[in-house]
Amino acid sequence: MAEVTNVIETTTNLNVKLCSIYSRLKSEILQDSVFNFVDNDHQWINRMLDCNIPGGKLNRGLSVVDCFKLLKGGKELEDDELLLACSLDLCIEWLQSYFQVLFDIMDGYHTRRGQPCWFKDSNVGLKAANDRFILRIHIPRILRRHFKGKLYYIDLLDLFNEIEFQTVSGQMLDLITTQEGEKDLSKYKLPIYRRIVQFKTGYYSFYLPVACALLMSGENLDNFTSVRNILVEMGTYLQVEDDYLDCFGDPEVIGKIGKDIEDFKCSWMIVQALEQANEDQTKILYENYGKSNDACVAKVKTVYKDLNLQDIFSQYKKASNDQLISQIKSQPSKVVQELLKSLFAKIYKTQVINLDP
Amino acid sequence: MAEVTNVIETTTNLNVKLCSIYSRLKSEILQDSVFNFVDNDHQWINRMLDCNIPGGKLNRGLSVVDCFKLLKGGKELEDDELLLACSLDLCIEWLQSYFQVLFDIMDGYHTRRGQPCWFKDSNVGLKAANDRFILRIHIPRILRRHFKGKLYYIDLLDLFNEIEFQTVSGQMLDLITTQEGEKDLSKYKLPIYRRIVQFKTGYYSFYLPVACALLMSGENLDNFTSVRNILVEMGTYLQVEDDYLDCFGDPEVIGKIGKDIEDFKCSWMIVQALEQANEDQTKILYENYGKSNDACVAKVKTVYKDLNLQDIFSQYKKASNDQLISQIKSQPSKVVQELLKSLFAKIYKTQVINLDP
Repeated sequence: MAEVTNVIETTTNLNVKLCSIYSRLKSEILQDSVFNFVDNDHQWINRMLDCNIPGGKLNRGLSVVDCFKLLKGGKELEDDELLLACSLDLCIEWLQSYFQVLFDIMDGYHTRRGQPCWFKDSNVGLKAANDRFILRIHIPRILRRHFKGKLYYIDLLDLFNEIEFQTVSGQMLDLITTQEGEKDLSKYKLPIYRRIVQFKTGYYSFYLPVACALLMSGENLDNFTSVRNILVEMGTYLQVEDDYLDCFGDPEVIGKIGKDIEDFKCSWMIVQALEQANEDQTKILYENYGKSNDACVAKVKTVYKDLNLQDIFSQYKKASNDQLISQIKSQPSKVVQELLKSLFAKIYKTQVINLDP
Repeated sequence: MAEVTNVIETTTNLNVKLCSIYSRLKSEILQDSVFNFVDNDHQWINRMLDCNIPGGKLNRGLSVVDCFKLLKGGKELEDDELLLACSLDLCIEWLQSYFQVLFDIMDGYHTRRGQPCWFKDSNVGLKAANDRFILRIHIPRILRRHFKGKLYYIDLLDLFNEIEFQTVSGQMLDLITTQEGEKDLSKYKLPIYRRIVQFKTGYYSFYLPVACALLMSGENLDNFTSVRNILVEMGTYLQVEDDYLDCFGDPEVIGKIGKDIEDFKCSWMIVQALEQANEDQTKILYENYGKSNDACVAKVKTVYKDLNLQDIFSQYKKASNDQLISQIKSQPSKVVQELLKSLFAKIYKTQVINLDP
C-alpha cells in the first residue's frame, strides 16, 4: 500500500513538473523572435495549445523521464536532465496532438480527453487543420532551443523526422485501406491490420520515448533495433487491446463511446471475426458492419460473442506477452532489460485495470 | 536574340535535370527502408507525388541552382553540386506543395498549374489533407539521404524548420484575420496585410533558396540578415503584384481566374482601396466585397478604377524597386550584390512580361 501511494505521489509530482515546463515551453514559443506574436495571434496560439496539449500524458505509463531514470539505474534526475526529459515528453505530446487533430475532424469525434474537440469550437472549424501544422512545427523549435549544442541534437531531429515519416505513412495506409472507394470488408486482413497499427501507432507511442531516453544517455540508436521491435510489438498489443475495449470495454473507463463498428474501422475485432466466421456469420458481418444503427451494431456484437472473440483476445494476449518476455530476457544489456520489463509491467497493469474495472 | 535563346536552352536543360532528379528522389522515397512501401501504398505515393510536385518550379525565376552558381562567380556546377542544389530546389517544391494542398481545398480551387487539383480526384478527397503531411515529411528524408555528413546539415534542417514555422504562423495569421467570425472589412489594414504576406510567402519563396545556396557555399546565415530582409521585401512586392494581377491581369497569362474579390481576400487591392476611398466608395466596397456575384464584383472593380489603383500600384512598384536597389548597392559582398541584382532583374522581367503580355 505504501508503495502504491509512493507511485501516485511521484506521478502527481511529475505531472506538476510537466505542467510547469509546458507553461515555460509555450511562453518561449510565444516569444520566438523569428515570428513576433502579437495580440490576436498570441491569444490564438495560447488558446490552441492549452486546448490541445496539457492533460494527455502519463495515462499511457510511458515517459522519457521514467525511461531515462531507469537507464540511470534508478537514480533521481538532476534539474537540467529533468527539464530536458520533460521537454521531450512534451514534444511527444505535441506530436500526438498533431496526429490527432485531423482524425478528430475526419472521424467526427465530439470530445477527446473529456473536453470538446478543438475543431468543434465555432470559431475554429477548418482552421484546426492549419493548427496541426502549427503544432507540428513547434516541435523543432523546442528541440532547437533546448538541445542545440548537445552531441545528440542531429540524432534527435533525425529520430523525430523518421518516426513522423513512419506514422504519417501508416496513417496513409489506414486511409487508403479503409476509406478508398466503396466500403469493402474483403480488404480487412490481419497482415494489413498489423502493418497499419505498427506504423500508425507503435513507433511514436512506444519506441519514441525510449529512443529519446537512449539518446539522452549517449547511446547510438543503431545498436537498439531489437529493442525497437519489442517496443513496436508492445504498441501493437496495446492497439489490439484498444480495439477490443472499443467493443467490450466500459465507456466510463476507456473515456470514449466506442464507434469502430459504426465507423467501418479496420479493427482487430472485425479482422479476427472475418477470419473465424462461417458463411452465415460472414453474411451478417457484411450486411451490418459500418452502419450507424443500434440493431446492426448489436448483430455484429452478437457474432463477435458467438465467435468467442473474448477468448481469442485472451489467447492472443497470452501469446504476445510470452513472446515479449522471452525477447526481453534475451537482451544483452541488463539496464535495458530492466527498462523493458518495467514498461511491460506498466502495460500489463493498465490492461488489468481496464479489463477489470 | 542569341542571348534569349541561350537562356531558354539553359532553363530547358535545368528543367530536364530537375525532372530526372525528381524521379531519383521519388524512387529513393519509395525504397525507404524504414517504411517498406508495397502495392497500393507504393502506387498512392507515386501518383500523389506526380500530381503535386513536377512542373511548378522555374516559373518564379528563383532556384538554388542559379543562386549557387552566382555565388560561385558564374562557374558551372560540378555533377555532385548540381545533384545537391537540384535536390534542395525540389525540397522547396515539396514544401510549396505542402503549403498549397490545404489552401486548394479551403479555397475551393478546381485547377492548379493547369491540372485538376489533387483533392478533386474522386478517390482522394479529404485524404489529400493527410497527403500534406506526407509531402512535408519527405523533405527531411531527402535532406538526410543527401546531406547527412555535410558540415551544414544541422543548419539546413534548422533553416527548413525555421522557415516552415514562419510560414505556417503566417498562414494562421491570414486565417484568423480573414476567416474568423463575421466578414469584417475593418480588419483589412496595410500593416497586417504586410505581416501576413511577409511570413506566409516571403520567407519560403524568396529567402529560402538563397539561404540554401549560402549554406552550400559554406556561409553562416547569421551574417546575412540584411540579405534576408531584402529578399523578403522582394517576395512582398511579388505578392502585391499577384494581388494586382488577380484583379487586372489576363487570366490566360496568370494561369488562373482571379477570385480575390469574391473570396473576401485580404488583398493589397482592397487594403489600398479602403485607405483611399471616400464615404460613398467605402459604402460600395462594404456592400459588394466578398460576394460571388458578377454585378458586385464589377462594382468593386469600378471603385478600384475610380481610385486609380493602377497608378498607385505603379507608384508602389517604383518606390519598392528604388528602395531595393539602394539596399542592394549597400551590400558589402560583391558576389552577394551580383546575386541580388540578378534576382531583382528576373523579378522585374517577370513583371514586364505579365503586365504587358
